Formats: sequence, C-alpha cells, structure tokens
Amino acid sequence: MTKNPTLDRVKALRQLMNERGISAFIIPGTDPHLSEYSADHWKSRGWISGFNGSAGTAVVTSEKAGLWTDSRYFLQAEIQLAGSDFVLFKDGLPETPSIREWLVEILPSGSVVGIDGSMFSYSEAKQLKEFFEEKGLSLVSDFTPFEQIWTERPPVPTDPIYVYPEKYSGESLENKISRILAKIKENNANAILLAALDEIAWLLNIRGTDVPCNPVGICYAYISEQERILFINAKKIDKSTAEYLQANGFKLAQYEKIYDFLSNRSESERLHIDPRKINYSLVNAIPKDRKIIFSNSPITWEKSLKNKVEIAGFKDAMLRDGVALVHFFRWLEEHVKDGNVTEITISEKLREFRSQQALYVGESFSTIAGFNAHGAIVHYSATPETNATLKPEGFLLIDSGAQYLDGTTDITRTVALGELSSKQKRDFTLVLKGHIGIATCRFPQGTRGSQIDILARRFLWNEGLNYLHGTGHGIGHFLNVHEGPQNIRLEENPTPLTPGMVTSNEPGVYIAGEYGIRTENLTLVVEDTETDFGKFYKFETLTLFPIDKKAIDKSLLTEEEIAWLNNYHQTVFEKLSPALDDASKDWLRKATDKL
Amino acid sequence: MTKNPTLDRVKALRQLMNERGISAFIIPGTDPHLSEYSADHWKSRGWISGFNGSAGTAVVTSEKAGLWTDSRYFLQAEIQLAGSDFVLFKDGLPETPSIREWLVEILPSGSVVGIDGSMFSYSEAKQLKEFFEEKGLSLVSDFTPFEQIWTERPPVPTDPIYVYPEKYSGESLENKISRILAKIKENNANAILLAALDEIAWLLNIRGTDVPCNPVGICYAYISEQERILFINAKKIDKSTAEYLQANGFKLAQYEKIYDFLSNRSESERLHIDPRKINYSLVNAIPKDRKIIFSNSPITWEKSLKNKVEIAGFKDAMLRDGVALVHFFRWLEEHVKDGNVTEITISEKLREFRSQQALYVGESFSTIAGFNAHGAIVHYSATPETNATLKPEGFLLIDSGAQYLDGTTDITRTVALGELSSKQKRDFTLVLKGHIGIATCRFPQGTRGSQIDILARRFLWNEGLNYLHGTGHGIGHFLNVHEGPQNIRLEENPTPLTPGMVTSNEPGVYIAGEYGIRTENLTLVVEDTETDFGKFYKFETLTLFPIDKKAIDKSLLTEEEIAWLNNYHQTVFEKLSPALDDASKDWLRKATDKL
Repeated sequence: MTKNPTLDRVKALRQLMNERGISAFIIPGTDPHLSEYSADHWKSRGWISGFNGSAGTAVVTSEKAGLWTDSRYFLQAEIQLAGSDFVLFKDGLPETPSIREWLVEILPSGSVVGIDGSMFSYSEAKQLKEFFEEKGLSLVSDFTPFEQIWTERPPVPTDPIYVYPEKYSGESLENKISRILAKIKENNANAILLAALDEIAWLLNIRGTDVPCNPVGICYAYISEQERILFINAKKIDKSTAEYLQANGFKLAQYEKIYDFLSNRSESERLHIDPRKINYSLVNAIPKDRKIIFSNSPITWEKSLKNKVEIAGFKDAMLRDGVALVHFFRWLEEHVKDGNVTEITISEKLREFRSQQALYVGESFSTIAGFNAHGAIVHYSATPETNATLKPEGFLLIDSGAQYLDGTTDITRTVALGELSSKQKRDFTLVLKGHIGIATCRFPQGTRGSQIDILARRFLWNEGLNYLHGTGHGIGHFLNVHEGPQNIRLEENPTPLTPGMVTSNEPGVYIAGEYGIRTENLTLVVEDTETDFGKFYKFETLTLFPIDKKAIDKSLLTEEEIAWLNNYHQTVFEKLSPALDDASKDWLRKATDKL
Repeated sequence: MTKNPTLDRVKALRQLMNERGISAFIIPGTDPHLSEYSADHWKSRGWISGFNGSAGTAVVTSEKAGLWTDSRYFLQAEIQLAGSDFVLFKDGLPETPSIREWLVEILPSGSVVGIDGSMFSYSEAKQLKEFFEEKGLSLVSDFTPFEQIWTERPPVPTDPIYVYPEKYSGESLENKISRILAKIKENNANAILLAALDEIAWLLNIRGTDVPCNPVGICYAYISEQERILFINAKKIDKSTAEYLQANGFKLAQYEKIYDFLSNRSESERLHIDPRKINYSLVNAIPKDRKIIFSNSPITWEKSLKNKVEIAGFKDAMLRDGVALVHFFRWLEEHVKDGNVTEITISEKLREFRSQQALYVGESFSTIAGFNAHGAIVHYSATPETNATLKPEGFLLIDSGAQYLDGTTDITRTVALGELSSKQKRDFTLVLKGHIGIATCRFPQGTRGSQIDILARRFLWNEGLNYLHGTGHGIGHFLNVHEGPQNIRLEENPTPLTPGMVTSNEPGVYIAGEYGIRTENLTLVVEDTETDFGKFYKFETLTLFPIDKKAIDKSLLTEEEIAWLNNYHQTVFEKLSPALDDASKDWLRKATDKL
C-alpha cells in the first residue's frame, strides 16, 4: 500500500504554522470569490486532506486534523480520508461539534487560529474573530501557506472570457448598470464592489470557462457613477471583448491590483459591499476611515427575476434538453439488459446526446447516476471504484443538467429498471405527490419558500419519512445551477417567491442501503390572479420529460393529482414530439399516455 | 352634540410637552409589565384618544395627532376617533407610514421625541432611540405627563392575589425556581428579574384579578440563588398568601421600590433580563457598570410545555366548557326565531351557562359574537350602538372562552342560522378543510408553526381567498389566552412545535360586508412515532364541541376529511354525553351524527 500523500503535506503545513505561531488552520473549500465550485488552483482543502466533495472544511492543528462535511458526503469522505491524518466530523449530527466549538475545546487559552482571509466572506470571518476573541483565542487572517508548500499547484486559469449576446441576455450592460447604480443610491452608496463571479457575468453580459460547469470568468468589478473597472488577467481578454468593454466605459486592471485599488479609495466614496459576497481580505484592504455601506448585493435579487428573453431561452433550452433525454432514455431502456451499462456510461451517454443539441455548451453539474443503494447517497458521483453495472431491477436515479447558450437545465428522474416492490412504488408515489403539491400550489404575494416546503414533504411525513436536503434551489440563466436569493427549504429565508424566479422542485426519499428516489423539474413563478385579498402567484413547470409511470401506485393518487400528471405528460408530448423521429415519437407517446 | 372630551386632554398634554421641550409624544396601549391587556390605570392611550381597542398607539405632536391600529380595528377606530384631534393611520396598508417614519418626516431636525420608558420594552425603546438619533432627532424616555393631567385616573388595583394550588399547577414553586435558576446559570447569570405578569404567576403558583380576563396580579419578582423578592402592594397580600410566600423564602417589598432596588445591585451580580419583557425604565435604573445578561426569558419556554396535571386540567375544563356550550347552542337554536336575541345577549348567555360549571372563574377574553356582516370584522365587539338582533338567516360567528381553575378555553364556532348560499357553504368548507389540515398534520421534531401554516390556508389560496390573522396562538394554563413562544402564522418564528404545547387552530375567511367564518379548536402537541428519520409529532384536539354540519358542502371534502370530522364528532359525543340531560344528549347526538 502506498503512503497517503497528504501525510507529508500536513507535515509541511504544520512546520509553517509553527514558524508563524499558529496553533490551528481552517481550510474551507471555496475561492476568493466565495464560489460553490472553484477552479483547481483553489482546491487546497482537497489537496491537503484528499477529500474532494463540493462541501467541506479541513482543520489542521499542531496535533490533530479534522474534516467537516455534511450527510451527502459521509461515505465519500470516509473512503477518501482513509490513511490520512484527518478524522471525519459529520456535520449536522447532534453529537458533532462545530469547528469553532471544537477549537475552543482543544486549544489552550491564548492560542492563535489562522485563516486565509480571502477564502472567507467578511461576515463569516468577522463572526469567527469575535467568537474566538470572546473565548480567549485570537485570529490571524493573512496566513497563506499554500503559496509555499503546494509546489505543483495549478495556475489561476487564463482562458478567455467572451461577450454574452443581448439576444440571449435580453438586457444591455448599460441598462443593467443604471438599474444597479440606482439601487445602491437608495442605500446612500455611490460605488459597488463585486466579487461573485456569476454576478459580474450577469451584470456585464460576459461569460467564461474558468469554473467547471459554471460559465464564469475569474475577475473582480468596481462600478461607480464615474468609473468602471474590471480586474482581470489581461490574457483573458481578446480583441472583441476588449472593444466591448471599452465601448461600455470599462477600464481594465490586473486581477491582483484589486487590493492596491481598495487601499486607495477617496474620502467621498461610499462603497457598497455585500458582507456575505466579498471576502474578508478585500474589506480589510480598505482604509478604516473610509465609508462602507454593508448591504445585500442588489444584483442577487435583480438577477433572480428572469426577463422575457431569458424565460423564452429557458423554455427553448428545455425543449432541446427534453429531446436529448428522450434519445438517452430510449437508449438506456434498450441497453440495460446488455449487462454492460454502468453508472459512468450514463454520464457519458447523457453528455453525448445533449451535445448533439443546438447551443449546447456543457454540463451544468456532474451527473449523479445512482443505481439502487447508490441512489440513496444524495450527492453520489460514480468513480471507477464504486461504478455499478445496471441490471433490470429496482431504481436508477439520474440527476443531470446542461448549459445551453440560452438557458440552464437541471432535471432528476428516477426510473424503474425492472419489477418494483409495493414499498418502492409507495415511496415513489409519495415523492410524486409532494412534487405535484409544489407544482400546483397557488400562493399570495409575499409567500416564502419555507412556507410551501411542507407541500412537498407532508405525504412522506405522514409515513415517518423525510429527506434532509432542500426542496428547491434558484437557478441561473446560462449561469450557476445553484443561485439565490430564493429557495424552498425547511429553513427560513425571507425572500418572497416572485414572478420571474426559476426554482427547482425536487422532493426525494432515500432508504439507506436500498434505493433513492427524487423527481425534479424546474419551475417559473408566474402571476395567477388578483382578488380582494391581493395578488396570487403560481408555478409553471418548465422541464419537459415524462415521469416514470411504471413506478407509480395509482391508488395513492387523488383525481387532481392524476389530472396534473396526465396534463403534464400531454404538454411534454405536444412540445417534444415535433422534434422527434417516428420511433422516438412512439416511445414518447407510450411514456406520456394517460395514467 | 357635546364636545369630544379628548380635545381638552390633548391640549393639556401639549402644554406639558411644550414645558419639557418635547415635540412629539408616543403613547402605546400597554403597561409597565408590557401586558397585552392592562388594568384601567394604564389605559392612557384610550383616555387621550378615545380609542379603546386592544391594539393601537397614539402619537401627539405640537400640531398633529395620530392613532395607529391594525385592520381588526379600522372600523371601531373610525367611530371612536370621530370629533377628536386624532387622524387614523391604518397599520399594515402599504401607504401607511410607521410611527417612526412619520415623525422623522414631519419633525424638524433636532426635535425631541418623548416616551414613558416604562411602557416600552428595553429592546423596543433602544431601537427607537438609535433610529431617531441616526435621523437627527433625540429621545427622552422619562416623560410621564399622565401623572399630572389625568386627574380622574383609576388607581393601580389593590385586590388580593391568591395561591394557586399544586393540584392544578402540577409543580411546586420550589421545583420551578430550581429549574429556572439552572437555566439562567447556563447563560452565566446568577439572578433574574421578572415583570411579565403571567410569568410571575406561573413561576410562583399565584393568581390575581388585576387584569380583565387574565388571572394575574400586578407585581415584579427578583430571584437569585441567595434571595427572592416580590415587589407588590402590601394590600394585595393576605395572611395565607404571606405565609405561603414566606415559607418559600420570599421577602416582600413595595411595588414602586423595584427602581431603587435595581439601582443598588452588587458588582458580583449577573442579572438575567429578557429585553423584550422588561421595560426600558427598569433597565435604565441599573447602574451602567453592572453586568446584565440579555436573553430570552427561560420561563416563556418552560411555561409553554404543559405538565401532566395541567394537560389533565385542560381536558377536564374542555369537558365542562363543552357541556356549557351544548346548553348555550340549544338555547340559541330555540330562541333565534323569537326575534329578540342580540349579539350582546349571546355574551351574557354564554357567561350564564359557563358560570354554572364547576371551577368557573370568568371569561378568558371578551366574547366576539358577529352576525353576518359583523362576523367579517375580525375582533368585533358588539356595543349598544352596533348590537344586531339575530334573524334566522346567514352566519353567526361566536369566539369565546372561559377561565376555569383547572384550565383556559378558547373556541370559535360559526353556525348557520338559516339557509346558506352555495358560496357561503363553499367558504365554510374551505375553512374546515384548512382546520382539518392542521388537526391531522404529522411533522418531524423541529418543525415551526410557519412551516405548517399553509395547511390551513391552501384551500382558500386556491380560490384567491385568505385571512390576515394568524392560524394559531399559544394559550396559558389558567393564565393568558394568548401566550408565546410558539404560534402558527405566516410570519417566521424560530420556536419548534414541541410536545406539551397548547395552540389554537383557527383558520377563517372574512367577506367584507357579508359574513365571517372561523372554526377554532385548541390542540396539544403530542408524540406520534419515531423512525430512522427521527421523532415525529402530531396534534391532539382538546376542544369538544360539534362543527355545524348544516354549513358544510360535503362534495368538497375528501374521504379522509369526512372521516376526521365523523371521528371528532364521535369523540365529542362520547365525552360530553355522560354529563348531559336526555334532551341535551339527543340534541348532541343529532349534531354529531355521521356526515
């Protein structure tokens, strides 16, 4: 057995920590833009611990090492941490201490905790500092050991960004900027700093290829009434992009110069900063006597309300995605019995069929294809070691999506590969009832996601079942597959569900060691009616692909639920069939026949 | 027409304001204990404005006067403010400014706003002060003009308090105090100040008669590991109460001495204060260098989890209340046609029938009896001017409740007095479906009221209807009819619904000018099941009285809903019939027959 390479890495880190007098170092899995997915250059948590899931934080002290992640990744983390110094801390279990509690517990009073402040939001690091100081520890926020010890560190990507045409975005850069400047003026600010890559991409109508699955480019933006600056590696700007930016009043500056720039702000500036979207080091670069307006980024809200062109693009993308899925699922149905289709084949085949569609750019996230027990691992990603070969039995859960130039898709279908038990059918039908509960919900203006979440869960709750992930997340328009501010979750979120928002509807249920079921469509909030009691809204389902009728126990559905399903299937057939060959059309006709 | 007496009162107030250099004075409708209902002595907002609804705030400036109240009281306020200086500000309408916004708008910079700090919670007044100071105004919090200008002011009540026996409370004072001292110790406090009258009544197992409908006595309590003091008017303590308090280690002090006491706290004291339950003047009496632990009162939570004896008491009280209601509704059914039964008669008759039951103490709130259009006024209270005579047509909404020594009741029934239109039946049935939605809900540990609220509203929302009040409030055990911390509302409240909590379930719908419908039972959270997904809870309905079948459109109910109703009615019959005479038993049998 070869030695785990992280052992030497941790040793090198501890030596640097020792030199700086740092007793513990916290390593989150993000980047200086606080992205959910980041370029390889910033995957220091994965490099030091070996755990490469999308969520997790490593902590190294002079004697111990821990890795915190949530239930989606418990299994993966256990495998990947084997042979390392890292002990797995299972986030979300009552007995698991938080990182800060654990450090307070194990470190002697007076110890110094280190972070790289550029990997924490301002509000996060500020809270951490206050917490530690109250408990007799201190926080150093300029510790950047990976610059020294990570010798084969991948560079920051230098691939070009490109202009995203108005025929897809539906609104000019100029128009968006005037709206945002007007918004920050309401907050008494006269300039705004942007670091979230999807916010800059949306505002400037630019896209890039720096982050897997997220079509964004690495840069910072500064915008005031007088000045517009994009901080970006010059290699990333080709001639046409340079012309576009210049024509729109943008100056270019080196990516790293953002810190110098912030340290030289004028006294009259009142800079708008979203404390949860700008990193701690950036805020600290601003002289203490300068005026900062801490407030939510106005772009988060504006970006979530899709305009008519974006909505039309989403709908067109759904048509093409649906057609690709018909081809894929026909192929799957024919080949499962061959005995050589694996979970990994599925990802490849999905990419292949989708890439045949117009305006296809790539995946919007890594496909989750989980056969039977693997379906119960919520964010399962097949590896050569775990890769299961499909058999004509039980459930296959496939959660996948694509980036098209005119929209982003994200769909989960769970299909029966063979005969199902009555318990399997019951569970599938309970999830479907919840899905329909959200899809058919009508609600007054002001309603929040946490209020309607129960409509997706109540049938499961009645049977003592539940799922521990959210029911719905916002989704970007040819941007990140997860975006805020709205969601549908158990947890409170003050954002009202508002016309123009695109949100997933994805209840599920996971029976450990047996199977997982999830049914996901994307939905659009639209106006419904206006009465003496105000405006009412509803959801329009955007995703177009049949739900597997073989897995349904019809006796558990109400007449209204059956009507919804039949009506949805009729729409799917009407919209997709014109783009299908006869054999595919026949397949879809059967799949969308009345239940 | 006689001159409105408030005109001279406002004039006298303005003179005092002028002398103190105060430009605006804010007069809330509470007392120094921040009670929802208060003794007459503190009804200064009613005295100065003429408006006596349970919710509302008056503001007097040197030139203007305004009264803010919510939609429940718009009609009443318009009538009561007629001929006064006061302009009605309708709280909750988008165009209505908040009091603070209005004052910032109309007052010149540098103006002084006055409050009586004893009528505001610490957190409320602190926010107000910060807000005004940011806007260039200042706040004076020791302005108490009513001491001078309210010449015929009723005195603070001096009626005796009494000991509440452990056979009803289920837990000794000593036991409760040890639990509370342990709780505050977790917060690093060693003493606690209590001002909320129901919290003191619960903790000390005492009751009083100082506030209409709320069986509490006016006092403050201070409890530490070394010392227990009750600040109360000596006239309120008879011999047996004095002995009880002394035996439990309590010293007595004059009610007004609380301020002196707080100004003399020792350096080693770490006083627990709930900033939303202790008034601003009390906190300001504490020297600035003393340690205060601001945190939620632990009593709020502990009091909400009813013990076995309290739950048994609630159930016994429901039996007697149900029997009284059978007698009342039989009487009503027989006499509506006489043509002389009015809304006010109903309150009187309800009191009469309930007072025949054992352990009856009084009403738990003023009965709301609204015939047809009056039913659409949510907190309608019939006055001689509005009093309607019932006719055998449409809906009568009756919301009433009683205090019994062993429990508090609160029930709303809407009954058909004659033929109903199909729209009336539809609306009644939609409300009933919502009521059943809550009653049959099963939910995991940690679920909050705002998550399940939609189950009561969704059938109304589907028809573009809604109601603008909460779905459920907590209720005290022989204490206040409204208590926290839990509720079931649109608005977020972090409190999880937990076994032992008693909460109302009262969806409704109000068609302005036509009719109001509400169906209310009290429910108890109980354990349901435990699975791999954790603990699940459900509601047990406590209230025992039939729901009017004549108003139901059966075709709108599902089989499950019909089964719930029939099952509930069977329980009502089984529990109430043993205490009924034959004629009443026959009446109840019909009322609870299968739908």
